[in-house]
Amino acid sequence: MTHEIAVIPGDGIGQEVTPAAVDVLGELNIDFEFVHAEAGDETKAETGTALPEETAEIAADADATLFGAAGETAADVILPLRSIVGSFANVRPARAYPGLDALQPETDLVFIRENTEGVYSGIEDEITEGVRTLTRVITEDASEKIAEYGFQYAKRNGYDDVTIAHKANVMRETDGLFLDTAERVAEERGAEYDTALMDALAMHLAMTPEEYGVVICPNLAGDMLSDLAAGLVGGLGLLPSANIGEENALFEPVHGSAPDIAGEGVANPSAMILSAAMMLDHLEYPEEAETVRAAVESVLDSGPRTPDLGGSASTEEMTEAVVDEL
Amino acid sequence: MTHEIAVIPGDGIGQEVTPAAVDVLGELNIDFEFVHAEAGDETKAETGTALPEETAEIAADADATLFGAAGETAADVILPLRSIVGSFANVRPARAYPGLDALQPETDLVFIRENTEGVYSGIEDEITEGVRTLTRVITEDASEKIAEYGFQYAKRNGYDDVTIAHKANVMRETDGLFLDTAERVAEERGAEYDTALMDALAMHLAMTPEEYGVVICPNLAGDMLSDLAAGLVGGLGLLPSANIGEENALFEPVHGSAPDIAGEGVANPSAMILSAAMMLDHLEYPEEAETVRAAVESVLDSGPRTPDLGGSASTEEMTEAVVDEL
Ligand SMILES: CC(C)[C@H](C(=O)O)[C@@H](O)C(=O)O
Ligand SMILES: CC(C)[C@H](C(=O)O)[C@@H](O)C(=O)O
Repeated sequence: MTHEIAVIPGDGIGQEVTPAAVDVLGELNIDFEFVHAEAGDETKAETGTALPEETAEIAADADATLFGAAGETAADVILPLRSIVGSFANVRPARAYPGLDALQPETDLVFIRENTEGVYSGIEDEITEGVRTLTRVITEDASEKIAEYGFQYAKRNGYDDVTIAHKANVMRETDGLFLDTAERVAEERGAEYDTALMDALAMHLAMTPEEYGVVICPNLAGDMLSDLAAGLVGGLGLLPSANIGEENALFEPVHGSAPDIAGEGVANPSAMILSAAMMLDHLEYPEEAETVRAAVESVLDSGPRTPDLGGSASTEEMTEAVVDEL
Repeated sequence: MTHEIAVIPGDGIGQEVTPAAVDVLGELNIDFEFVHAEAGDETKAETGTALPEETAEIAADADATLFGAAGETAADVILPLRSIVGSFANVRPARAYPGLDALQPETDLVFIRENTEGVYSGIEDEITEGVRTLTRVITEDASEKIAEYGFQYAKRNGYDDVTIAHKANVMRETDGLFLDTAERVAEERGAEYDTALMDALAMHLAMTPEEYGVVICPNLAGDMLSDLAAGLVGGLGLLPSANIGEENALFEPVHGSAPDIAGEGVANPSAMILSAAMMLDHLEYPEEAETVRAAVESVLDSGPRTPDLGGSASTEEMTEAVVDEL
């Protein structure tokens, strides 16, 4: 069975780390057909749109998409792409790897971020000059779906601690619905869980991340908390993510296009390769996923590293080392 | 001139740390009249309302209010109180003190949090069963006011780095207005500044807080980022805050009522005493404010400490040590 994979490197280091992940995937004994497509700042400069219709169609038709990064146009590319693949869950693991300098070396978190609504619904208005509103949407359906996904994920991946993040003391009706729904799901499943106000959670994650595992969050809370967790494990260069839909999915590093180092060939390919590993899991190649993860971990532990990790290796050297470990 | 200060200890450790701050203030050569008032969970249990009319009036009539903490009813107490004193700016310093175990010992941040609108406007609706909305409000007036306050604060307190936090790539109209307005204020003042997406900022604050100083934020972003900063300096027990209005103000520790340790007499009084110091600044007693701050710092450095700081002192012992240092 051939898997059609849309490959959208995008801007900046997306152009460097995406081929690295494709190289790693090419070493596995799986029948992939990679279909390349364009998006991002340069595409906008050339074609007038950051996400051309053709790219949207390639992503829609593929079995899964690998996306690198976009620059200024990031929101114009990634938000529509998430919606094209029908993503309802944004899965963001944040793990500290042995051998790397992490602020909190015991961190092993997975954020399960609602990915369709909240402040991302895109409904904004100018009521009168100087007065603008944004309509934050929370539905029972989306809350139920993300909670189901989160508890399932925790069970399947052996996480005992599940935390439901919210700000229902202020957003009483909307986060109230999110919280009540997630608690109902937990109770129906007979699952253990905790709840946490997202402000207090930000503090506790910084201080004692080892006390947390899976964190189920509304959209924007997940955006911030997962970036915070990136800070605890040594930066965005290590964090993969998955955008999971019913029939399609998109995999991308949490990092952006990093214009400061783009073009130098020194971007850390780990987040992108680990995103490809999440894709392997999604396509039901758990062994191959594990092989890729183990290879990355081994290189992070004792192989050549890119400058962001204190090494002097190039993207290519680090990628080759991962391939050698497969 | 007599300063009338409303004193609202509230629930839990609020009952322990608020008297400590009043004791410290009582040692200064300033004519305070303290008017005690009730609010919080216990008040609600007794009177049916968490914030009785009488308490609201006392806070409204006072020159300033000292508030301890509230439990489950926190939002029902603190949000109306902030509005009663006309608070438009929530000022939250987060500093690491020498001699204490901080995750990031170089942290010296001050969050200037917009305190009247954003998701706190309290407009929520049930559109149909299972579909709820919250209207997030951003106005040019409030954005201008908080930006003016923030840049003024930075200048007066010698902070060179000012960062405007936002999520204008997603909340284009609302945070767009916040960001544009704050940038205009900066330019009119000829002030240097940076802007940061609040998710990326969460990561950077965790990794390199020393690169930041004053952070001007929308309401909810300030709520989360300041709690995150608390995690970097060793927890909420050290963080004071001020809610500044045109003619009135309220001072409170960032911590809550801490029911787990309430009643044991071991609550750390630092955040509350430092909040009283912020009140002294506000009432234009800068020397006395500095004296109180120096006394707290000296005790934190080498005096008796409460258990949350690794010591075994009681609230009273730590407070007495601060008084001795005055
Ligand atoms: C680029 C932006 C729209 C996006 C988001 O807010 O989701 C990014 O921050 C992310 O986390 O992937
Ligand atoms: C209790 C709650 C309403 C409050 C807030 O969200 O402002 C608290 O978290 C704070 O930061 O003072």
